[in-house]
Amino acid sequence: MTSSKQASSELSLSSIINQNKTRIENVLTQQIKNSRIDESILKNAMEYSLLLGGKRLRPFLVYATGALFNVNQQDLDAPAAALEAIHTYSLIHDDLPAMDDDELRRGSPTCHIKFDEATAILAGDTLQSFAFNLLAKHEYQNLSATQIVQMLTVLTQAATDMCAGQSIDLQQTNTLQKNNSSQDSTLSNDALLANLEKMHSLKTGALIKASVLMGAICGSASEPEIAILSQYADAIGLAFQVWDDVLDIISDTATLGKPQGSDLAANKTTYPAILGLEGAKQKAENLITQAVHALQQLPYNTRQLEQLAYYIIERDH
Amino acid sequence: MTSSKQASSELSLSSIINQNKTRIENVLTQQIKNSRIDESILKNAMEYSLLLGGKRLRPFLVYATGALFNVNQQDLDAPAAALEAIHTYSLIHDDLPAMDDDELRRGSPTCHIKFDEATAILAGDTLQSFAFNLLAKHEYQNLSATQIVQMLTVLTQAATDMCAGQSIDLQQTNTLQKNNSSQDSTLSNDALLANLEKMHSLKTGALIKASVLMGAICGSASEPEIAILSQYADAIGLAFQVWDDVLDIISDTATLGKPQGSDLAANKTTYPAILGLEGAKQKAENLITQAVHALQQLPYNTRQLEQLAYYIIERDH
Repeated sequence: MTSSKQASSELSLSSIINQNKTRIENVLTQQIKNSRIDESILKNAMEYSLLLGGKRLRPFLVYATGALFNVNQQDLDAPAAALEAIHTYSLIHDDLPAMDDDELRRGSPTCHIKFDEATAILAGDTLQSFAFNLLAKHEYQNLSATQIVQMLTVLTQAATDMCAGQSIDLQQTNTLQKNNSSQDSTLSNDALLANLEKMHSLKTGALIKASVLMGAICGSASEPEIAILSQYADAIGLAFQVWDDVLDIISDTATLGKPQGSDLAANKTTYPAILGLEGAKQKAENLITQAVHALQQLPYNTRQLEQLAYYIIERDH
Repeated sequence: MTSSKQASSELSLSSIINQNKTRIENVLTQQIKNSRIDESILKNAMEYSLLLGGKRLRPFLVYATGALFNVNQQDLDAPAAALEAIHTYSLIHDDLPAMDDDELRRGSPTCHIKFDEATAILAGDTLQSFAFNLLAKHEYQNLSATQIVQMLTVLTQAATDMCAGQSIDLQQTNTLQKNNSSQDSTLSNDALLANLEKMHSLKTGALIKASVLMGAICGSASEPEIAILSQYADAIGLAFQVWDDVLDIISDTATLGKPQGSDLAANKTTYPAILGLEGAKQKAENLITQAVHALQQLPYNTRQLEQLAYYIIERDH
């Protein structure tokens, strides 16, 4: 891909990203406003965290996958909003003092700093039920109850996997901090990579895959189509995480919105720590190539999903 | 009700309670074992808290309401287990240091004392998705996808309400602690009662009502039947809480499984504080009478639900 091609595809992708971002932020604002929660502190904390910005990658994947099958956007609003609510709840809880103890998220105070710890725990808890409630009670135009149950099955499983991933991450970090080493020296590089991949596939991969699958369920995708889209989702989910580790080294604090080098400081096992910086970059690129190859098996216009795959390893935050 | 009649009805109720308790504990153990969570600390923490005992009131209500409509028990297992998982997650999070900061639950260490705070937060989070996952993926024998979506709508809404109730409770307690008073002296007794009732109807009432409604949904209850069962559920939900406040005064620590007088110590507004001890007992009895009257409008054998209503104000913990 030449750099001028890249610039033009970037431009067009970034305008689609912005369109989706505006749409999902309106949906989220409206859903919080319409919800039965009239408890102002709780509602403010939920809204604060939901609207703290972010790339809205998961909603993008829902809309872009749904678009392959010409699903109307109103029907995709509920899964897109539900995914973003689950993602937001996980960030609020991950940032808590007992977890990663982060005071900054996207350049702004984290929920427990802006409000207090009890409110942050409750806001996360409420966002989780709120997400599933959105999905269950939405007035869909073209979806059957069976499709709604399928989406709920996928999203509830992904949310469970996400917690298992966070639990593994916490234990690995604790073990490494005790040993004061950035890697468990008793393990081979292959074993370290396998552990890291398992953790990420649960902690972030599951929700990214759920985004693609929920779009596919809305589109009544066939089983072979779902298998192909799963390959795509697995590959971009992992690439996303590898690239995050790379950015922790090559980017700066202002661009990241969180302290640069925080993985190193926390003694976390990362892809660059195991593969070297160039090795990690190469791994991310290979994964994106795999993702794009998978899409090419589909008889649809998959341009948006392809562009998004390239964007994952071009982004600087 | 004479005391010999009471004793015989108690016996029969307690054997049904025990049967249901054994059934639901087996279901929960099996579901945790079958779940995809292979992360041992997280799984142990979830199982520890799920099996810490308790009356299993919510599963009882599902089974007893479902029985009115001859729903098979296998179909009721999923909503019963989901309710207990949601209830358990709420107890784990309510006990956290940033919330009520309790070290003892049912006479045993709370989850964050037995494990650690991060694990307790994650175990609660996972139990919430686990609950909805159970409900969505269960292989029902006689339920339609529409009924499953209805149950998910009811339970997700109740879980959201529960958080709003906990948020109100925390704020009231904080305000009262600042004023060093057990009641806000600027409010009339009627206003205090209305606030207290709103908090309890959200914090505990919503889940009790959801238990009855989910049993009714499994039984394809008609709208008038659902309205009657809602009256019953609202009345026993509130009576349960009024009686809890009474027990905090008249029972002892060993029987309660938590420190006697802890509401007083925490400066919480309670029914006895507003109505006096006898007034609070009378209120609980009146609510139970209302609950039983509501049931008498149904053309079914509602004996189990009636017995349970009386049990609520006869229990000593």
